[in-house]
Amino acid sequence: MKKIMNHPASLIEEMLEGIVQSYASLVHRVADSRVIAKNQAKKQVGLVSGGGSGHEPAHAGFIGEGMLSAAVLGDVFTSPTPDQILLAIQEANQGQGVLLIVKNYTGDCLNFEMALDMAEMEDIAVEIIVVDDDIAVENSTYTAGKRGVAGTILVHKILGHLARQGTSLSELKTIGEQVVKEIKTIGIALKAATVPEVGKPGFDLADDDIEYGVGIHGEPGYHREKIQPSRILAQNMLDKILADYETVPTRIGVLVNGMGGTPLMEQFVYMNDCLRLLSERGVDVVFHKVGNYMTSLDMQGLSLTIINLSETDWLDALDSQVNTISW
Amino acid sequence: MKKIMNHPASLIEEMLEGIVQSYASLVHRVADSRVIAKNQAKKQVGLVSGGGSGHEPAHAGFIGEGMLSAAVLGDVFTSPTPDQILLAIQEANQGQGVLLIVKNYTGDCLNFEMALDMAEMEDIAVEIIVVDDDIAVENSTYTAGKRGVAGTILVHKILGHLARQGTSLSELKTIGEQVVKEIKTIGIALKAATVPEVGKPGFDLADDDIEYGVGIHGEPGYHREKIQPSRILAQNMLDKILADYETVPTRIGVLVNGMGGTPLMEQFVYMNDCLRLLSERGVDVVFHKVGNYMTSLDMQGLSLTIINLSETDWLDALDSQVNTISW
Repeated sequence: MKKIMNHPASLIEEMLEGIVQSYASLVHRVADSRVIAKNQAKKQVGLVSGGGSGHEPAHAGFIGEGMLSAAVLGDVFTSPTPDQILLAIQEANQGQGVLLIVKNYTGDCLNFEMALDMAEMEDIAVEIIVVDDDIAVENSTYTAGKRGVAGTILVHKILGHLARQGTSLSELKTIGEQVVKEIKTIGIALKAATVPEVGKPGFDLADDDIEYGVGIHGEPGYHREKIQPSRILAQNMLDKILADYETVPTRIGVLVNGMGGTPLMEQFVYMNDCLRLLSERGVDVVFHKVGNYMTSLDMQGLSLTIINLSETDWLDALDSQVNTISW
Repeated sequence: MKKIMNHPASLIEEMLEGIVQSYASLVHRVADSRVIAKNQAKKQVGLVSGGGSGHEPAHAGFIGEGMLSAAVLGDVFTSPTPDQILLAIQEANQGQGVLLIVKNYTGDCLNFEMALDMAEMEDIAVEIIVVDDDIAVENSTYTAGKRGVAGTILVHKILGHLARQGTSLSELKTIGEQVVKEIKTIGIALKAATVPEVGKPGFDLADDDIEYGVGIHGEPGYHREKIQPSRILAQNMLDKILADYETVPTRIGVLVNGMGGTPLMEQFVYMNDCLRLLSERGVDVVFHKVGNYMTSLDMQGLSLTIINLSETDWLDALDSQVNTISW
């Protein structure tokens, strides 16, 4: 394992300090905590997300006006503890309650729910949205049901925009659940991530193999095969995602998300293939985004996320200007 | 070699289409060309950059209000041709002339100079700024003098801001040359990039070796050794950069740039080490930036760039809001 680091035990602390010192005009650290929060908290519902580290820029990179109020960082691929999540809730609360946006992993759900209970004992109104956009597999390592992956950042963006506009906690919860239903993601890996504490890739892939349906913690997917040209990868992944909607959407947003070790060049080539295929099917793509947003350490690969915008007015929320490190 | 692509011969065309289709609200392609340009051209001096592909998001990701007017893309690690550069100049020209910002590589300098001559024959006023921020080595593969690397994006940002404010072509040229003198960069590689046409890494590094002073095309550096903790890497690189200034700057900007295959987590840990060391030396860091800005395909590694802001007013230009894909 070759990584630019000092020691696995100090990794999160050092990364966290690197983030808050580099972007001190946008964010700050809640003292003695694993919580990073927005500098200028306005009167609105607070939005909190988080989870294990190793998915940078998620979620701290999405803190800012029009997106998250705070993010709470766990160890690598490990949920933050309830007391840390509670600190994030307290920090984000401006008297109008706090919405938690959680990726569907068993540990995260458990700890965010526990923090919710603790916050309610302090009379803070808290609701929770669980994102389960990964359609690759039902029930997986670490997860009951479907996993929450890159589509989560679209939830941050839409709800962040609405919260800024003054939408109430209960409305955000209702809309958030509608948004989650319309987002579907599938990922592929060319090379698994290496967790620093472990020192070797989470699984082995032959020099010419890829794995379809991997999660963002090296969870197994559903199919392994020889790598194919980008247009075939795009076709297979698009087919699987579009077949998962009851009716094929006519108007969508597309997010191509790099897993951390895959350069932008490959992501744009893949996006080009997706857009050509969607155009051939007559699907109107009205929102596009390409880059490393929900990574898995140094994993090589990418994920494709589709959000159905056919009968919604969420496009304005996706397009609105925000001031964050990484959106 | 495992890459998400179709064929090396169609790679740049497909990537270019991926970029312009994904960000059509910001940029467009000049018909039948390798030129990507800003949608809303205002009356100002045009700023054009470019070079070989493989450094994404440079340079197309920096097109937009307050940064570049147009970028011209060559093949992977290969200069664009003079006729393509001329198209970019014509597109960027709003009657107030065009400034070319070129990384110091022999092929780029030759072709951009030739395009400048061609543009002058069409009575377009053109000036050129050559960026040579890489202090690692004098004269290298492909380069006479020092190489131009990640510091180039700081030149885009400062001059882009000034051009937007109405600064004239001759003033931009003068200020640009001052800016270049104050920027110094050094890079390390943990793993070399794999050029798609070649199919294997540009050089071999043992499992625990790193190379100091590499360029962004797999050019050799000046020293190879066993990988050290991040704080030692930061110390060595900072020492070398600061020693290269006649007087150690008291007020600086720091850019930590990922080479394409290195996750943000490692970049932030490294930034944290740099900031601690700079603080111990009493150097005031007033501008920070961390991420993949000037990459080398899938190379693992990063570069450190320092800009001396001790006696300048360039901080406002660095901090100003822009609307680009990737700044």
